[in-house]
Amino acid sequence: MAVEACCLRLLVVLIVFLNVESKFMAYNTTSQIVPGKLNVHLVPHTHDDVGWRKTVDQYYTGANNSLLDAPACVRNVLDSLVPALLADKNRKFIYAEQKWGMCMQDEAATHYIDMIDQTTLGHRFIKQEFNVTPRVGWQIDSFGHSSVQAYLLAAEVGFDSLFFGRIDYQDIATRKNEKSLEVVWRGSKSLGSSAQIFAGAFPTLYVPPSHNFYFDTDDVPPLVQDNMNLGDYNVADRINDFVSEAISQANITRTNHIMWTMGKDFAYQYANSWFSQMDKFIHHVNQDGRVNALYSTPSIYTDAKHATNESWPIKSDDFFPYASEVNAYWTGYFTSRPALKRYVRMMSSYYLAARQLEFFTGISKSGPNTDSLADALAIAQHHDAVSGTSRQHVADDYTKRLSIGYKEAEKVVAESLSCLISSRLSTGCKSCPLLNISYCPPSEVDLSKGKHLVIVVYNPLGWKREDVIKIPVVSEKVTVKDSTGKEIESQILPLLNASVSIRNDHVKAYLGIAPSVTTSYWLAFSATVPPLGFSTYMVSSAATQTGHLKIAATTSERHTVYKTETSQNETIKVGPGNLKLIYSGNDGKLIQYTNSRSSVKESVTQSFSYYPGDDGSVVDYGEDGNPHFQASGAYVFRPNGTYPIKSEGQVTRVYREKEHAEIEFTIGPIPVDDRIGKEIVTKITTSMRTNKQFYTDSNGRDFIQRIRDYRKDWDLEVNQPVAGNYYPLSVLVDRSVGGSSIVDGQLELMLHRFILITGKYHLRIDPLGEGAKWRRSFGQEIYSPLLLAFTEQNGDDWTNSHVTTFSGMDPSYTLPDNVAIITLQELEDGKVLFRLAHLYEIGEDKHLSVMASVELKKVFANKKIKHITEMSLSANQERREMERKRLVWNVQGSSEEGPKGLRGGPVDPTKLVVNLAPMEIRTFTIDF
Amino acid sequence: MAVEACCLRLLVVLIVFLNVESKFMAYNTTSQIVPGKLNVHLVPHTHDDVGWRKTVDQYYTGANNSLLDAPACVRNVLDSLVPALLADKNRKFIYAEQKWGMCMQDEAATHYIDMIDQTTLGHRFIKQEFNVTPRVGWQIDSFGHSSVQAYLLAAEVGFDSLFFGRIDYQDIATRKNEKSLEVVWRGSKSLGSSAQIFAGAFPTLYVPPSHNFYFDTDDVPPLVQDNMNLGDYNVADRINDFVSEAISQANITRTNHIMWTMGKDFAYQYANSWFSQMDKFIHHVNQDGRVNALYSTPSIYTDAKHATNESWPIKSDDFFPYASEVNAYWTGYFTSRPALKRYVRMMSSYYLAARQLEFFTGISKSGPNTDSLADALAIAQHHDAVSGTSRQHVADDYTKRLSIGYKEAEKVVAESLSCLISSRLSTGCKSCPLLNISYCPPSEVDLSKGKHLVIVVYNPLGWKREDVIKIPVVSEKVTVKDSTGKEIESQILPLLNASVSIRNDHVKAYLGIAPSVTTSYWLAFSATVPPLGFSTYMVSSAATQTGHLKIAATTSERHTVYKTETSQNETIKVGPGNLKLIYSGNDGKLIQYTNSRSSVKESVTQSFSYYPGDDGSVVDYGEDGNPHFQASGAYVFRPNGTYPIKSEGQVTRVYREKEHAEIEFTIGPIPVDDRIGKEIVTKITTSMRTNKQFYTDSNGRDFIQRIRDYRKDWDLEVNQPVAGNYYPLSVLVDRSVGGSSIVDGQLELMLHRFILITGKYHLRIDPLGEGAKWRRSFGQEIYSPLLLAFTEQNGDDWTNSHVTTFSGMDPSYTLPDNVAIITLQELEDGKVLFRLAHLYEIGEDKHLSVMASVELKKVFANKKIKHITEMSLSANQERREMERKRLVWNVQGSSEEGPKGLRGGPVDPTKLVVNLAPMEIRTFTIDF
Repeated sequence: MAVEACCLRLLVVLIVFLNVESKFMAYNTTSQIVPGKLNVHLVPHTHDDVGWRKTVDQYYTGANNSLLDAPACVRNVLDSLVPALLADKNRKFIYAEQKWGMCMQDEAATHYIDMIDQTTLGHRFIKQEFNVTPRVGWQIDSFGHSSVQAYLLAAEVGFDSLFFGRIDYQDIATRKNEKSLEVVWRGSKSLGSSAQIFAGAFPTLYVPPSHNFYFDTDDVPPLVQDNMNLGDYNVADRINDFVSEAISQANITRTNHIMWTMGKDFAYQYANSWFSQMDKFIHHVNQDGRVNALYSTPSIYTDAKHATNESWPIKSDDFFPYASEVNAYWTGYFTSRPALKRYVRMMSSYYLAARQLEFFTGISKSGPNTDSLADALAIAQHHDAVSGTSRQHVADDYTKRLSIGYKEAEKVVAESLSCLISSRLSTGCKSCPLLNISYCPPSEVDLSKGKHLVIVVYNPLGWKREDVIKIPVVSEKVTVKDSTGKEIESQILPLLNASVSIRNDHVKAYLGIAPSVTTSYWLAFSATVPPLGFSTYMVSSAATQTGHLKIAATTSERHTVYKTETSQNETIKVGPGNLKLIYSGNDGKLIQYTNSRSSVKESVTQSFSYYPGDDGSVVDYGEDGNPHFQASGAYVFRPNGTYPIKSEGQVTRVYREKEHAEIEFTIGPIPVDDRIGKEIVTKITTSMRTNKQFYTDSNGRDFIQRIRDYRKDWDLEVNQPVAGNYYPLSVLVDRSVGGSSIVDGQLELMLHRFILITGKYHLRIDPLGEGAKWRRSFGQEIYSPLLLAFTEQNGDDWTNSHVTTFSGMDPSYTLPDNVAIITLQELEDGKVLFRLAHLYEIGEDKHLSVMASVELKKVFANKKIKHITEMSLSANQERREMERKRLVWNVQGSSEEGPKGLRGGPVDPTKLVVNLAPMEIRTFTIDF
Repeated sequence: MAVEACCLRLLVVLIVFLNVESKFMAYNTTSQIVPGKLNVHLVPHTHDDVGWRKTVDQYYTGANNSLLDAPACVRNVLDSLVPALLADKNRKFIYAEQKWGMCMQDEAATHYIDMIDQTTLGHRFIKQEFNVTPRVGWQIDSFGHSSVQAYLLAAEVGFDSLFFGRIDYQDIATRKNEKSLEVVWRGSKSLGSSAQIFAGAFPTLYVPPSHNFYFDTDDVPPLVQDNMNLGDYNVADRINDFVSEAISQANITRTNHIMWTMGKDFAYQYANSWFSQMDKFIHHVNQDGRVNALYSTPSIYTDAKHATNESWPIKSDDFFPYASEVNAYWTGYFTSRPALKRYVRMMSSYYLAARQLEFFTGISKSGPNTDSLADALAIAQHHDAVSGTSRQHVADDYTKRLSIGYKEAEKVVAESLSCLISSRLSTGCKSCPLLNISYCPPSEVDLSKGKHLVIVVYNPLGWKREDVIKIPVVSEKVTVKDSTGKEIESQILPLLNASVSIRNDHVKAYLGIAPSVTTSYWLAFSATVPPLGFSTYMVSSAATQTGHLKIAATTSERHTVYKTETSQNETIKVGPGNLKLIYSGNDGKLIQYTNSRSSVKESVTQSFSYYPGDDGSVVDYGEDGNPHFQASGAYVFRPNGTYPIKSEGQVTRVYREKEHAEIEFTIGPIPVDDRIGKEIVTKITTSMRTNKQFYTDSNGRDFIQRIRDYRKDWDLEVNQPVAGNYYPLSVLVDRSVGGSSIVDGQLELMLHRFILITGKYHLRIDPLGEGAKWRRSFGQEIYSPLLLAFTEQNGDDWTNSHVTTFSGMDPSYTLPDNVAIITLQELEDGKVLFRLAHLYEIGEDKHLSVMASVELKKVFANKKIKHITEMSLSANQERREMERKRLVWNVQGSSEEGPKGLRGGPVDPTKLVVNLAPMEIRTFTIDF
């Protein structure tokens, strides 16, 4: 953000050294790799969190430093860095998180589509501004590392390596022993070695090897003093220190190349302080000659590693969960700030849909666009943003940015829909961003005087879709007609008291005024929408049907919420379709789940409980022998016991056409007057024999098998039996959460840690091997809900004068069930960015884990494709060029070679059919 | 130091602003003075203490920052400052204490000769390196301000103004009220308006007007955020804050010019952080237009003040003592670290003498010189060096530097004396730097086998001089001959047990080995030495007189120390000459002082006592209403009661030819196990009616009347009746100390605050108006003791083959009693720096407070003066030019105009006679 946002003085500096009386020391920093020696690659770097304790703008300007222990001003980094680099061309630098990325994204709470979007934004910026294509992933600070980051956001964007700083303390100890900090990471079961990457975990986080090599101005290392005329000359001591640290690192590293990460968060605010010391070290250490020190970059280091022809261990699965030490499992943040996590998820899907609509009508040069939402979403993927680990005022800033971005994107959507519906639409399309708190002024209108409410339902998915629409209305006497003018079935549901109260309180809080209308009902009806298109529905008063419409209009059926009955021994069965939920008549609790179609019958209970957070008052002694006081916090989940809580404010929904239950809950505020945090979880308990196994997803894409109290890569010493088994979850929840299976047959989700939220998750039990279809396709629907817009109609000629249904694709065409359009966006140069994702892993579903084909001529039925180019995932280079440059790595043990990974192959420019192998994501730019 | 000492990269930087898409803000910083407006002169500055908590080199390199609260690295200041200044030519900067000075000297514990020497060194450096002559004195941090600093080291070096930051909190309150922070300071009674200077005390120390304008990277002001695209835009607020601070300062300032001191100690370690904010303020404030902000310097400010034709209040006397708030009188440091203060004084006089000897034989191009002693002494004048307020390791560093400088100067002295004595001197001249602890190997030799000890006694003063020489010897059977071979009277005194123990312990500590010889005696004899010359004395064994000398050699007379006798009612009278001291036979205490020549008879007691230091545990509420916990410390003297102590280890000496007593004491270590500091004082109590009046000196030069519990410039609110009456003292003590007269008829000296020291002071009572001669001339002798060198002689032909007596001047000539040569030094360009000081103030002595004349042809009898130029005091410009440029200031009230001050007038180049008016110091460069 900041870089683009003016006021940065980009200095081009010519340096002339005045050699006054030849008294100046000249340092030789020209050293390159020396084959026979231990090469110490000094990699100067900083990463400047786009928000954490301060907002991203405050970090940039240096404001509000009173909030910090040490000052942070990114502008100072930039201003001092450029002259320092120009002063000596041998100096090098790695800059993370200043739009070069666009941030160092979180890898637990992020959704893969957001990760792709933000990486694309950053990589294309770098390409445009500097004509540079990054070769290395630099996820040095994120708190655990996902397979999706490795195979998708590293290998598939054309990186040759991926580096990171945080892996489990037990894992790192094992890897040091086995010289396996550096591996070939094969993160995708489906794509195998075709999407593998050389990956390295640093031995000392992402900082220098010891505090003797930290050189920020507020650090206190023993600086190299090499001037004989001044006191405290210490060159020999400092060289010995350097050499000894280098040898010690060499002892845990394969090949004679080691990397020293010379920096930290917000380092180089006065860049000279680092470079002047490194100049001296390089000069004196190389004069000493025992080791070879050089300015380097991760790319140079990667090439050097590759040139050795060494073989590397294979890593599959991922690096979750991350524990920094005993009792410090960073699994709390999987759920921290669930409201922010939810908002990010909503905005993400909105952004996807908004770009589609923007594409259909073309980017307006002067009008609103989706760029600020893109920026806000990119920043929100930061490892202290969606992770929920920032300070409150910073979380507020992320929310504000998203909100500002949304406001502009909302205009794009409204204009586009209006335009698609009719060039003469008078009132325009309105939206209801506060629908989640039952507030929607466009739908809460008095229809008694002949006014009709028109609902435009847009479907961002590539297949036809049927879903239940729910909107607040002021009257229970309404009727609904579809695009053809045919009346359809609808329901009226009363608003719960809890919902009314949330609606009133929060509308007041957000808008400054209470809702002017009292709404008591939800109107629900089932909408059917074409792929990449919309349908319109008209809601009218049932009481005031005008003459030329059917007199006997069907009023919406009135439904009530099931209430627990008092009869002791009875059970209550709920469910209009195949799925039935059976509740105890005694206490109203769920006791059984049955599906008459799939013959599933399983006893199920669902309960709430909480883990009190450990306050850290009892000292631990970590690996280093030092005392630690580890409390549960924004990052760390450290439970201290578990207590049941009575469920309240929960609604379970079952739909006739759907074979899953939708559970909506409201939790909070959590009482913390006792200064003890409380982690609220829900547990779904069945009698299934799961034998310690369960599955969690990787950024909403791949599924990874987890085994309780077990790690594939080392003998786990279990010290946190709950927190140490938590993993991030993204699918079938309405936001990312943490979850686990702490006992067989049971799943638990951590729903909340603070304040008040309303959330939703989905439950379905399928026979073994049959779950993929639901979780994949329905998972996509949860991610991309139908987008609603509202307008009004006073006369009766709507259907004649307006487009009531629309599809961006050939009306006869639909995408295959295993493929989703995850990007459709007009770029600033007029080209269109188009990304297709195969949704199934290999072997996941017998029908759908197969090669899929998409006919572009039918997807873009109304346009002619002049030219199509396949690009890297982040669209900053041609795919062909990326593949040509890709380094090939040797792996240990030929038996581990594994499948190469199926790929769809080149697209014939005349046929224009794109084939996608399981899990393949293909990115194109298209000229129409 | 650091600047000269290599490794500084002086960067010349050309800045090109890339105007990328015109997104950059351009700040208008070109503003100049605007006559009709309030002009806010922003004066960016730093001062980088040449040692305090870290050594000067550690401050330079940035090492050892763990000792500090905030980092300090002077190299970073320099490296970041140069590009920042070159980036915008409107930016300005004031740099103190990096050889531009050469330090911001202390003004209490410093001797005026050291002040002149260090200022000369700095000013000549600036002239040579940058061809710049400073116009402004910048004593912003020293703890109180002396008259000598004002009239001598400011007016007489050609400054147009002098600024400082620390004046008494009551004084500053009064001056703010009366708009008299800025004055014309007439610091010299004798030189009057001819040596006055415009002087300004800052309203807020030397820092910005509020914490909202501190801009180091670790400061936390509200930064100007003027980028509409980023959060927290705050331009209006920041301008209002600026304008309001400016108006508030204008209300206490004469004229429409105010200065904002934009910096602090070690500020600008990343210079951009200041300039970027000031750029913004200047730009936006001037757009606002209520006040005019500009980059300025003290010179620009001074010229602007001068141009207004305003009249200024007159200030005489000085700004001692300095209290920063109630109970915080900075009068402890007058005595802190007495050992360092003594060593500085010794080195100062040695440096003066060594340069004379270096001049006589010419500077050796390749051999040793006095430069490193000059550097070490210059740094030692720093306001945290000789002041005694640095950390221990820093004090050790000053001492080490002085010691290194001494070692080299010692070689200069030895070579010069050897050369002057004889070109064929075999053994060379040796010196005894540890004579103060009775250790002198060259004199502790066995003379029984025909060996003779030759003592060369050098007199750095311009007049003939007789003084007692005292050296340790191993035998009591010795005899002494003068330069003519004539035996002279001598005494043998036993070494006190205390002295033997100090000798043994300290020699072991300093040299690593104990003395190899046991010495039990002092040999004392009276030496007579010509001006600027030497005499030699030969010590031989009285037992082994060889044939051709007198057989009946006189052995040194054996004397013993007077011991207290037990007879109850008797008194003991001590003194071989006019002066007699009468001691009580009862307790051995001094009871009376008589001088038979001057008919003085005065009851005198002398006692020791101590003030326990207040531990600051009781809270004070200062002017600001905030609580302060003010303990007695290195700076502040805050006594908490007073307790007598029994005197021990004290020796009182009276000499036949001298009319004063010399009191030598050993104190320490002071027990501080109770964590309470103890300030040891000696009190000399008489029955004189002094009516609250006493006199203290200003840097060993002027005498200033003090009145107990009174300040000339404001109504003193007395809250510290002891500490608030303390003043620095430099004359008639062997180092600077603090002292006062707390009750009439009594003088007290604070001798010590910690550890072990041996010290000396001198006592004489004269009839009213007759004291000046002794304190002036004898004061000069105390400052410049005779310099001893030792060599040996085995044969008897010494007198024939060597020069036994020497004077650098015409043998028939002597300087007048009221003039001293305070500098005689060959400069690097072959010219000679020559400085004469009239020693008497106007009206001080009826015979000596008159115009004096020095005949240069006789002073330099052996050389021909080709050309002589009178220079400013610091020898960086011609005096004539300096006078021509000097600004003339209006003062308030014509009655205060006062005497212009007598001056000696130009030197006729043929007559070469220099006239000196009372207190005049004249500086010349001479070509021979």
